[in-house]
Parts: sequence; C-alpha cells; structure tokens
Amino acid sequence: MKGIGVIGLGYWGPLLVRNFSQLLGPGLRVCCDRDPAQLDNIAKTYPGVRLTRNFEEVLTDPEVGAVAIATPAHTHYQLVKQALLANKSVLVEKPMTTSVEEAEELVDLARRQGQVLMVDHVYIYSPAVRKIKELLDAGELGQLLYIDSVRINLGLFRRDVNVVWDLAPHDLAIIDHLVGRLPRSVATFGAVHAGQGMEDVAYLNLDFGRGLIANAHVNWLSPVKIRHMIVAGDRKSLVFNDLYPDEPVRVYDSGVRVREESVDERRRILVECRTGDVLSPYIPRIEPLRAVAQHFVECVETGQTPITDGAAGLRIVRLLEAAERSIKAQGGRITL
Amino acid sequence: MKGIGVIGLGYWGPLLVRNFSQLLGPGLRVCCDRDPAQLDNIAKTYPGVRLTRNFEEVLTDPEVGAVAIATPAHTHYQLVKQALLANKSVLVEKPMTTSVEEAEELVDLARRQGQVLMVDHVYIYSPAVRKIKELLDAGELGQLLYIDSVRINLGLFRRDVNVVWDLAPHDLAIIDHLVGRLPRSVATFGAVHAGQGMEDVAYLNLDFGRGLIANAHVNWLSPVKIRHMIVAGDRKSLVFNDLYPDEPVRVYDSGVRVREESVDERRRILVECRTGDVLSPYIPRIEPLRAVAQHFVECVETGQTPITDGAAGLRIVRLLEAAERSIKAQGGRITL
Amino acid sequence: MKGIGVIGLGYWGPLLVRNFSQLLGPGLRVCCDRDPAQLDNIAKTYPGVRLTRNFEEVLTDPEVGAVAIATPAHTHYQLVKQALLANKSVLVEKPMTTSVEEAEELVDLARRQGQVLMVDHVYIYSPAVRKIKELLDAGELGQLLYIDSVRINLGLFRRDVNVVWDLAPHDLAIIDHLVGRLPRSVATFGAVHAGQGMEDVAYLNLDFGRGLIANAHVNWLSPVKIRHMIVAGDRKSLVFNDLYPDEPVRVYDSGVRVREESVDERRRILVECRTGDVLSPYIPRIEPLRAVAQHFVECVETGQTPITDGAAGLRIVRLLEAAERSIKAQGGRITL
Amino acid sequence: MKGIGVIGLGYWGPLLVRNFSQLLGPGLRVCCDRDPAQLDNIAKTYPGVRLTRNFEEVLTDPEVGAVAIATPAHTHYQLVKQALLANKSVLVEKPMTTSVEEAEELVDLARRQGQVLMVDHVYIYSPAVRKIKELLDAGELGQLLYIDSVRINLGLFRRDVNVVWDLAPHDLAIIDHLVGRLPRSVATFGAVHAGQGMEDVAYLNLDFGRGLIANAHVNWLSPVKIRHMIVAGDRKSLVFNDLYPDEPVRVYDSGVRVREESVDERRRILVECRTGDVLSPYIPRIEPLRAVAQHFVECVETGQTPITDGAAGLRIVRLLEAAERSIKAQGGRITL
Repeated sequence: MKGIGVIGLGYWGPLLVRNFSQLLGPGLRVCCDRDPAQLDNIAKTYPGVRLTRNFEEVLTDPEVGAVAIATPAHTHYQLVKQALLANKSVLVEKPMTTSVEEAEELVDLARRQGQVLMVDHVYIYSPAVRKIKELLDAGELGQLLYIDSVRINLGLFRRDVNVVWDLAPHDLAIIDHLVGRLPRSVATFGAVHAGQGMEDVAYLNLDFGRGLIANAHVNWLSPVKIRHMIVAGDRKSLVFNDLYPDEPVRVYDSGVRVREESVDERRRILVECRTGDVLSPYIPRIEPLRAVAQHFVECVETGQTPITDGAAGLRIVRLLEAAERSIKAQGGRITL
Repeated sequence: MKGIGVIGLGYWGPLLVRNFSQLLGPGLRVCCDRDPAQLDNIAKTYPGVRLTRNFEEVLTDPEVGAVAIATPAHTHYQLVKQALLANKSVLVEKPMTTSVEEAEELVDLARRQGQVLMVDHVYIYSPAVRKIKELLDAGELGQLLYIDSVRINLGLFRRDVNVVWDLAPHDLAIIDHLVGRLPRSVATFGAVHAGQGMEDVAYLNLDFGRGLIANAHVNWLSPVKIRHMIVAGDRKSLVFNDLYPDEPVRVYDSGVRVREESVDERRRILVECRTGDVLSPYIPRIEPLRAVAQHFVECVETGQTPITDGAAGLRIVRLLEAAERSIKAQGGRITL
Repeated sequence: MKGIGVIGLGYWGPLLVRNFSQLLGPGLRVCCDRDPAQLDNIAKTYPGVRLTRNFEEVLTDPEVGAVAIATPAHTHYQLVKQALLANKSVLVEKPMTTSVEEAEELVDLARRQGQVLMVDHVYIYSPAVRKIKELLDAGELGQLLYIDSVRINLGLFRRDVNVVWDLAPHDLAIIDHLVGRLPRSVATFGAVHAGQGMEDVAYLNLDFGRGLIANAHVNWLSPVKIRHMIVAGDRKSLVFNDLYPDEPVRVYDSGVRVREESVDERRRILVECRTGDVLSPYIPRIEPLRAVAQHFVECVETGQTPITDGAAGLRIVRLLEAAERSIKAQGGRITL
Repeated sequence: MKGIGVIGLGYWGPLLVRNFSQLLGPGLRVCCDRDPAQLDNIAKTYPGVRLTRNFEEVLTDPEVGAVAIATPAHTHYQLVKQALLANKSVLVEKPMTTSVEEAEELVDLARRQGQVLMVDHVYIYSPAVRKIKELLDAGELGQLLYIDSVRINLGLFRRDVNVVWDLAPHDLAIIDHLVGRLPRSVATFGAVHAGQGMEDVAYLNLDFGRGLIANAHVNWLSPVKIRHMIVAGDRKSLVFNDLYPDEPVRVYDSGVRVREESVDERRRILVECRTGDVLSPYIPRIEPLRAVAQHFVECVETGQTPITDGAAGLRIVRLLEAAERSIKAQGGRITL
C-alpha cells in the first residue's frame, strides 16, 4: 500500500498518527493541519513525517494512497469529497458528515471512484463490542428486546455541535451494529442550559418495531461519568460498562419471566436482584483505534468493504439528522 | 386519636400493620382483607388485633377514626370514598386512584368531609429524600437544571398495570416534591415484550419549562437492579442511589461550566470525571414507612395538612394518566 | 421432638426466637432472660410463649428437650453444662466457651450424656459458604493456596472481649470448615487504642503447612465496613463478599501462572487485572439462622451429628485461645 | 543544569525517558542499556538522544550532570556508587539497594561527594499521597492509630525477588512518609506456592509503639487487583484507593467512639456502616513520575535535599531487610 496522510491534528488526529506510525512506520507519510503549533507537536515526536498546512499538497502527493480525516465535523464533507476525487481512500472521523445529503453523495462518490470509504466508529472495533456482537450472533441473548445506553459526562461544553452530535454517534453506531437495521422512527427530547443554545442533555428513543426499542441518554452536564449499556434479550441480557475495564461485559442468565403475581413471590423477588448466574467473559485489552487503523489498512490493501463503511456512516448521520429534527420539534417523532 | 384500621393485607398492608402496631400499640384496632389466609398471618403475629373480611365493619366501628388502604389501585377510589363518607381519615397507597377524575373527586370529598386524605408516597419520607429537599431548599444546588431517574428491576411482571403505573409513581412523587409544580407536558415511550400487553420498559419525559426537564426510566426487564437519580443544579449536583445504603446521597461540587474549547483542555477533561470535591452527607437509617405512619397520625390528631396530601396524590395521578395517554400515542407529547 | 427453650434475649436471642417460632410454632416453648424488659419484648410479639427469669425452670420443664443459649460468652460453659446434665440438647452461640479446657469438658459431657451439642457458627449455614464448600469439594478450585479474610467494622467497641473474640470466630469457623483441619501454628498481632485495654484491631495468621496459610484482619475501628474473603486455589480462586448480596461469590478462572519475566509481558500484565472469565454463581437468599435452627432440630430429632458440633466449637476456641496468647506475646507464634 | 542520562531501559526506564524528555528536551542527553533492542526502541521515539551500551561512557560525558538508574535492584549499589564517584547526582529506582550496608554506604558517599541522591519512591509524589500527607499534617485525622495497606495483584511472578521486595517498597515508602519514623519492630509472614522458592503472598506488621501499627498485605496471587489503604486517626480516618481514579481519597468523619454497650445501640450500629459525613476531596490527575522528574531536577539545580533522599531510601531498605529476615524466621519479630 502507498503511504497515508493524517488530516487534522486536534484531539483524534495525534491518536491516529500514533497508531498509523506504529503500524506502518514510514508508511505514515504526511500530517496536515492549519495550526503550526499542532504540526510542531507532531514534529517533536515523529521527526520523520512530512508536515504541511496545505491539504492540496497531501492530495497531489503520488505517494499518498489514503487519508485519515480528523478535522471538525462540518469540514468532513468537503475534505472527504476532495480526497475521493483525488483517488485517495478515506478514513473519516464520526460523524461522517453533518447532513444526510452530503453523506449520500460521499457514499455514491466513493463507489464511483472505487475507493474505500470508512468511518471511524471506533467502538465497533473495541474488544467489548466485538464480544457483544459475537454473543448476539451466536444466539446467546436470544431475540433482542431493548437496548438502553447511558453516556453522561461532566462538563465539557462544545460550541459547534450539541450533545447529540457530540456523544450519540457512539451509542447509535453500537446500536446500529447490533440491530443491523434502521429504526422506524426516532424521537429526541433535550434541554439547553448554557448560553450557546446547544442542547447539553438529550434522550433519544429509537423504535425498531416488533417490540424492539433503544434509548440513549447523552449528557454533558452530569456530576458523574457513566458509560452503561444494557442489551436485553429474551434468553439472556448483558451489561456493557465501558468504565469497568476489568469486566466491561457482564452476561446475566435470566430472560423474560412472566409470572402470575403472588404476594409471596413478589416479596421474594423484590429483595433479590437477579435469578441466575452472571458471567463476565474475559475481554482482552486492545486499543480500539489500533484495530481501526489495522482494518482500514487491510481494506485499502484488499479492496474489502469496511465493517463501518460509508453506508454505516450514512445510517448514523440519518439518525443524527432525525434526532436533531425531533429535538427542535420538542420531541416530536420523526419517521425514517 | 381513635383507633386505626388497615385495609388490604397483601404486600404493603402488613408493613403498615407492623408500623402502626409499633406506633400505636392497641390503637391499631382492626385489619381487613377478603383473603382469610392473610388475616391468619396477621393473627399469628398480632393476636390482639380485630380481624374482618368485611370493610363495612371497619367503617361502622365507632372506635376507628382513620383507615390505611393498601388494596389494589383500581379499588382505591371506591374504598377511599366510602371511608371519607363514613368520616374516617384516610391514608391510601400510591397511586391514589387510577384516573384524574376519581382523584379530583376524592380531594374534593376529603375537603368537604373535613377529613385528612394522605397518599403514601413513601419516598418523600425517606431520610435521603428529606436531605435532598433540604439541600435544594437551602440553595445548595442552585437552580434546578434536570432530574434523571433510573428505576429498573429484574423480572417481576404484573398483569394488572404496566410498568409506568407500577414503578413511576415513586419517581414522579420525588420529582414533584423537589420541583414543586406540574410540568407543562409529558411524553412517554415504552414497549411491550410479554403476553399481557402491558408495557414493561418505559421512558417518561417531563418538561417543566425554562430549561428544566425530568426523565424517568422504569423497567421490569433489566438484568440489573438500579435506583439512581441525578438532581442537577447550576451550583452543585447530587446523585441519590437508593441501593447504596451507606451513602445514598452524594453531592458533587461542580455546576455548569461553559468553556472555550481548547484541545488541551478537552484532553484533560476527557480523562477526568469530575472537577470538585464530593460530599456524602450522613443520612440516618430510618424506615420511611415509620415516618409515613407517624406523619399520618400527627395529621389526624392535629388536623395539619399532610406533606403528601390528596392534592399531591392528584398531581401524580395526573402525570400517570398523561404518561399513559402518551405511551398509547407512541410517545406523543401530552400537554397538562 | 419436645419443645425448645431460648436462653438469653439480647442481640441473637430474639433472632433465634423468631426462627424457632416460625419453624416449630408452639414447639418454641419458653424464653428466659434475667432482664424483664427483654422478656416483655418477646411477650409482645410472641404472646403464646412461656417466659421466665429463672434458667432452672427451663431445665426442669419436662416438655423442653433442647435449649438454645445466646447469653454472653463467659456464661456459656456453665449454662451449657447445666443443660447437658439436665439431659437437654444444646445449641450455643459462638464462641462455644472462653477456654479450651471448658470446651473440652463440654464436648466430653455431651458425648457421655448422649445429647446433641451444636455451636451456632452461623456462616457455615449461609448459602454463600455452602456454595464455596461445594465448589471446593468438587475440585473446582484445585488445591487451596491461601485464604485471606477481612472483617472490619466501624466503631462498636465492646468492653467484655477484644476484637479477636468478637469477630474472628466467624472467619475462623469458615476457614476451619473449608480447610478441615487445625493449623500448625497461629500468630496474632494487634493494637489497643481505647481505654478498656481491649485490642480493637488484629491480624491473625494461621499456618496450615504445605504452603497453605490463612490470614484474618478483624477491626472495630475502620472507617469502612468490609467483609471480603479470598479463597485461592491453584486452579481457580474465588472472592466471597458478604456485602454484595447480589453476587456474594465470584469465581475467577485463573490459577497460579509462573512465567518467565519479560518486559513486554510485564507491561501487559501490569495494566490487566485478570486473565480469565469470572463467574458469579446464583446464590439463593436464605437466612442462615433459619438453616441453623432447622439443622439443630433435625439433629435433635434424628441423633445426627451437627456440621458445627462441639468438636468444631472446640477447634475454634482452641484457635481463639492461641490467638489470644499470641497477641499478648506481641505476635509470637503459638504452636497448636 | 547539565544533561541527564537514563540507565536501564526495561520497564521504568522508558517512562523516565519520556518524562525527562518532556521536561528537559535536549537536556535528556543519553540513554544506556546493555540490550540493543531496548536502545532501538528509544531511538525510534527519541531520535535526538545519544545511545550507548556502555555505562562508563555516560559517566565520562562532561555534559552529563545527573543520572537516573532504572536497572534491576541488585545492580543499584554498584551503579549508584560509580555515578556518585564520577560526581553525578543520582535518581535511583526503589528499592535503593538490596542491603542496609550498601544503602548506608551510598548515603554516606553522596554526602561526601556533595551530590544529590534521590530514590524514586514514586507514590510519595502522587497527588493522592500528597493530599493525605497534607490532611495529616494539618491535624485533620488527629493522632494516627493504624495504617492498613492491601496491594494485591494477579499473577506476575518474578524470579529475582519475592513479593515483599517487589511490592512492599510502595507501602513502606507511603507508611514511612506518613509516620515519619522507623517502627520499633517488624514481623512478616508469607508463603511460597510456585517453584522458585520466592514468597508470593506476604503480610508485614510494623509496630511503631504507642498503639500505632501498620500492616501491609502484598500478594502476586490474588484473583482481584486491590490497592486499598486505610489511614485511621482518632479524629477522622481516610481510605486511599488507588484504583478509583475519580475518588482516590475518601475522608470519613468518624474517629474512635468508645461506648457503653447496649443491645439497642448494638443493633443500630450493626446495620450502619458509618456515622458521619464522607468527603472525597478533589485530587488533580498528575502523573507522579513527572513530579519525580521535576523534583529531581529542582534538587540538582538548587542543591535542596529531596523528599525521598538517600536516608528515606535507607529506611525502606532497612524495613525490607528486616521483613526478609522475619519471613525466613517464620514470622519471628525483628527489632529495628
């Protein structure tokens, strides 16, 4: 494979740089950012990498076969488009774009150009989500009943996007990966507390039909950090807690139990919290971004379609756009 | 005060019997249930108490001045009405009734009869909620921003009511107690997974206006039991975790912080979870139901209005009815 | 079986009364305490039970076939002896006596009288310890390597005994039950912080030979309550956490691993906390004291030897006496 | 200040390299290791740093004013000695040496040479231990009563030293820093389970006199990783949990309470876990090793005595040597 360029050296960019550097050595060919200070930082740690403030230079470099774009979301569309038109494969940070229209155009363009378009839905590559998908696919959970995700943080407000666009891409990408289809409708309810008019607390409801629902609580304004996802099936259920690195996934051996109500039974159950074994499978500690980088390189080299391809990116943008419309309509349900 | 009668000896009834017995001794005069087996249970433990299967006998007993009604919710209206008409003061289990119309009638009737009508919103009397209310009233939290409540359980399905009517009265009563006014609108989103057509997972959204929202996740179908409520203010926030009896309330010294976004700041914050001290105030362990019984007796003796009076009971029924209408309308928002 | 008498109505007595009452109904014949206030308490709740301040009356009652003795430890020897001589079977609270000599005499006497002598090592009858014993007996853990027990509490100081005699009987009884033999030696190290000259913090070390050791940390003076026991085997290990009622026993799929040291391996391991699955088997919630009462009744009826018989009680007293001698000798090791 | 050299590039070395590089830039002058592979690793990341396999070259480099030695413990004495004789200031990994005699000689030599000798007791520089020391010095805890430390790990066995020399330096350094004097005596009890004859589980008891004791449980063979230290005072107590990065230090508002024993009091206390507020002070997240590097540089530049100077290193070696003698004497107490 030809070399790779990393565009945008803010928060995610340097992480991509580190991973591509470890993976490809000098195959990490060029880094690009408008801010000379960010370029300097890279220069100190990776003295061999070419640096530029000019994206065009990356695109015209014949040794660059692919780019990883980690600039702010509103710039993704333009940069990805230019890269695809310049016949580069693209790994782009989530969300892929800020509108469905743009996302559709990029998916289409990538197909026409015959280039790989992959979105960095990084959680999909984490060992925990892989294990969850594996359990689900193996039928361990039975039929999915609901997914409940809580992703709440203290206090970093952003000015450019609201909490839905900032945090929900993670939840939506995982939910989309597990369910494997778009919901029928989305309703989102949120509130604005600070001056910029950006929602800082939001609840997303996804209705997949046939009793399957998903809910995500995303929040910049929580006193506690929580990353807690319940994936409930009619055979077993599991909890994915991303903040318990020792046991991120716990599988509960208890599905739906419909019972006649009896007072004694009720007394007993009310003090018990579960009624079966709990298994916490071994999950190796691997940096998800390393797996992202690896998968992207593989796809570029083999032409294989990425797990989180442009179509997946488009689905998430579709959900985000619907969520945005719903939140502006005070939680009115948007049919997809 | 005259004696008290307890009506309904299923789950809550015996707990009321125990508390009134400890409080009043022989002042606990009579227990009533249709099921002789439940009466037998009482007979064994409280041999001095009169037992009857006939509610009329309780009402016509001149030594009975007040009744505590712990029968199924759909019978509350009729029994409370009869008791008030028989000039008894009434403590009734939550929800007060199953419709707003009935609740309004009872509030009205209690006023006309000059009897105390109190609803057993038991959480309001717990030491933890009292402490939270105290902190809020003292301005410790500043202005309320949102309340997020999670009350999820494994596996006890009921046939008579859905999860909203079963569990949400607790959340709604606490939220109502803290906010002190009705929300402008309610939207509820849920799903049915078992055969009876009762929703077993639901999300309630309350919009109080001026940026204040509340959300409650109630669930019979969770692999884990969670009782977690965030009360977020613009000065401090707190978490009420009813399953951590040692530290049910934790107060976080960090309010809204709107910042310019900087990459370095963002890096730092992303790995930190909070930015101030945490205080876990001492909360005495007192059985809330004992405080309920005590408060009811006091109100009956002094004529004082209960904290959770008929009007509070009515507000909760109003919210439940709106939530029910919304859930049947697939989450459509109901204005109150 | 004839009736039962409960002697001593302080802390444990009423719990025994409740369990024997539930189990035997009127078979719970008599309760005895010197303090009329304690008798009054029983009278209120169990109006049918005969009450007396005179132990002799219990012993001469021909309808009483067995007694449960829950008086302070220093009175056990005398009361048990009298009861055995009066041909009553005996259940006695732990520790069985306050000296080995007394304990030996009682074991001997019980044998000669042909009466059941059982010690209330209540943990042995808890579902969690039963499950642990079952796993151990089934070879799941492999060979035992060590047991580490932490039983620390805040703040209840006793004047009559030190923390070793107060808390360690639990740890020692569990360890004895699991290991099944006396250690070769005991060393105990402690400190006195309050005025009564009673040790309030102590560490007990038991050496069973062949690499098997056990350690117990008992403490009245901890800011946090901990009940944490590691039972480590060369196949698997488990943690018994008595304060996590949902998952009191967690079995870790990882035994001894001796490795060549490599820097990379070390780096990896240092950030990981375990290297296998964790299973938390379902443990029913049953009150251990109920199982104690049931087992005692069974043994009296059938003549079967109790799991925690006089010999077990004697072993624990032997360990406590050795621990006491060691602590007075500043941790000098005492050979058994 | 002149440049610095880092000797030994195994586990700790590269961490020191990173910190000195960030701190001093080109002031990090040279790295030394016998293994060319480790040098290669450094070359990749820090291309400007001089590399050598020859320690002599470091010592004779006039631009090197100080060295940081991160080689295996048994080599410390020789290397530190040579460095001091070459008039270099020295930062050496813990333990400073493997014998008291050697440690004494180095302390003496450093004084005679007028060079800084600092030991990398890294925990002393962590924000959590700094906060604890600050609380203690401010009298918040009152008089120290005991320190209990648990530092247990799964499964990395070392061949060169036992668990006491591997893990206990951390506990001993913290205890020494907080108490500020040597204990009167040490007793250590351990067991060997794997083939190399190295103790893998050990309990260290330190007696400081006047009721103050300290205990450390160090363990390579635990199914769970625990880093839990109780520092108990007669005013307040605190728990330092190094694995809860959000709240590593929790201060409990409850000291010794000696009470008359009453049954009711006992009942109440037995179900409570604490009787006062709990405060979790804000602890910034700063890499302790960065503070180590900074402090060393400062001491070298200003001639100031390091917090963890040679004398502190000597005290820890003294404790380790005593612990070693005790463990070989089956826990016999060693007077210091």
